[in-house]
Amino acid sequence: MKEVLHQLRGRVDRALEEIMPPEGTHPQRLTAAMRYSLFAGGKRIRPILALAAAETCGGNAEDAMFAACAVELVHTYSLIHDDLPAMDDDDYRRGIATCHRAFDEGTAILAGDALLTMAFEVLSEERSGSTLSPDTRIRMISELARAAGWQGMVGGQQADMDSEGAPPSQPVLEYIHTHKTGAMIRCSILLGALAASAGPDMLRAMEHYGEKLGLAFQVVDDILDVTSSTEEMGKDQGSDAARGKMTYPALLGVEGARSRARDLVEDAKGALGGLGRGDILLHIADYVLLRRI
Amino acid sequence: MKEVLHQLRGRVDRALEEIMPPEGTHPQRLTAAMRYSLFAGGKRIRPILALAAAETCGGNAEDAMFAACAVELVHTYSLIHDDLPAMDDDDYRRGIATCHRAFDEGTAILAGDALLTMAFEVLSEERSGSTLSPDTRIRMISELARAAGWQGMVGGQQADMDSEGAPPSQPVLEYIHTHKTGAMIRCSILLGALAASAGPDMLRAMEHYGEKLGLAFQVVDDILDVTSSTEEMGKDQGSDAARGKMTYPALLGVEGARSRARDLVEDAKGALGGLGRGDILLHIADYVLLRRI
Repeated sequence: MKEVLHQLRGRVDRALEEIMPPEGTHPQRLTAAMRYSLFAGGKRIRPILALAAAETCGGNAEDAMFAACAVELVHTYSLIHDDLPAMDDDDYRRGIATCHRAFDEGTAILAGDALLTMAFEVLSEERSGSTLSPDTRIRMISELARAAGWQGMVGGQQADMDSEGAPPSQPVLEYIHTHKTGAMIRCSILLGALAASAGPDMLRAMEHYGEKLGLAFQVVDDILDVTSSTEEMGKDQGSDAARGKMTYPALLGVEGARSRARDLVEDAKGALGGLGRGDILLHIADYVLLRRI
Repeated sequence: MKEVLHQLRGRVDRALEEIMPPEGTHPQRLTAAMRYSLFAGGKRIRPILALAAAETCGGNAEDAMFAACAVELVHTYSLIHDDLPAMDDDDYRRGIATCHRAFDEGTAILAGDALLTMAFEVLSEERSGSTLSPDTRIRMISELARAAGWQGMVGGQQADMDSEGAPPSQPVLEYIHTHKTGAMIRCSILLGALAASAGPDMLRAMEHYGEKLGLAFQVVDDILDVTSSTEEMGKDQGSDAARGKMTYPALLGVEGARSRARDLVEDAKGALGGLGRGDILLHIADYVLLRRI
């Protein structure tokens, strides 16, 4: 199964390489910054989820490839902007300098803007071989915009900033997590299912799986921030706690948070139960729980 | 004619109010910042161009209203990000505090991100009464993404930053202006024409008009930065020159730049010549040349 994930990741990387402006493209500093962050060694979990969801729904992973690229572009933009001094002020990400450290703040802001915009370009461009109907493509664009925007990921990031220093509260924390991380994970799976022309029951199962997995993912992220070393994480350990961020370990303790993550992953896997397929999605759910970085 | 523009502006403002999250919507700080900048007294030139282009092409302005809102959302996001300390570092815009001054830098970055994302949400959402075909809507999304992204507006802003302090050069300046401002003005007109199902000849005429008008608009902007008082502009006078920015007056002198703007506006109006309609677009071209703020 590890081999399957590795292979999917390779396909995503190649597809991203194909859609990106080549090295040296004018304006050079901008395209270099976009490429720097996009090819900085991301695990490609969101695009892999899109491809796996398409296959689970009986479709072809290749039909979901543009959606997979789009969600990774949005994810990368969000990391660049979250790392900025005005937000999380992180110097390192995945063990290398963050975009604004490697380039400069202005360029990092623009590179994020450009990657976000490009996600919608990718989903809307005429592509030979695309078998998706215009209606499906519009639905995908609409879902991506809502998951990424003020009532999705951006809203979650704002709530996260606003919560710094506030006393831990379960409803606030759930809002932050379901929006900041959960919305785009759920959306990745949904876009994959849409690319496979999944019917209503299948879409519902995929959305359920996506919601629980997305929340589990962020709970585990919180735990890793407390328990992993700086070297393992490639960024400063305990940086959430240092900023007085609201996290699951702060609310429930590390063991309580672990137990919550386990429940969520079981719930996610349960959503796939009746399908008789979805091996990769089951495996990814386990991976989310067991990952160490 | 002034009355017609005033009326179109009112319709745009009402449509923007309808699509925006109402005051107080959670996360409150984010939606307040989005609304603050969107309703800060913009002239709505881009959406008015979209509506006017739709009418010139024999269509209904109402069919272009969502496109009009989308281009204004993109424009507002670009102002918020351009004003940030890491870019133009402006404290005032249209006579009031810029978004990051009224709120904070992190919130301003997120408000910009959210407005950009919302433009694509608006163009992709199911709307009762929308008579546009899915193919037309996808084309509009694709055109907007390209005009706003790395090979359009964002690319122009990067080139503008990179050019600070460099010796004036006509090709560099043309690149900056056709991309930073021109691409979105051209796109506004194109989206209006697409909403009216314009044929190939009409689209070509609209694109020609849009290209020349967009460049003229930025040349006049450069001139105003040198010649207007701070009070008239609502932002610091001569701030481009103070930052060593590449501008048309720096390259051609103020009179040379005025002459260039006149030629461009004549060229834009010429593109409408054969149509036998397009009064509003002719008037807007004159307005661009004669505006004082």
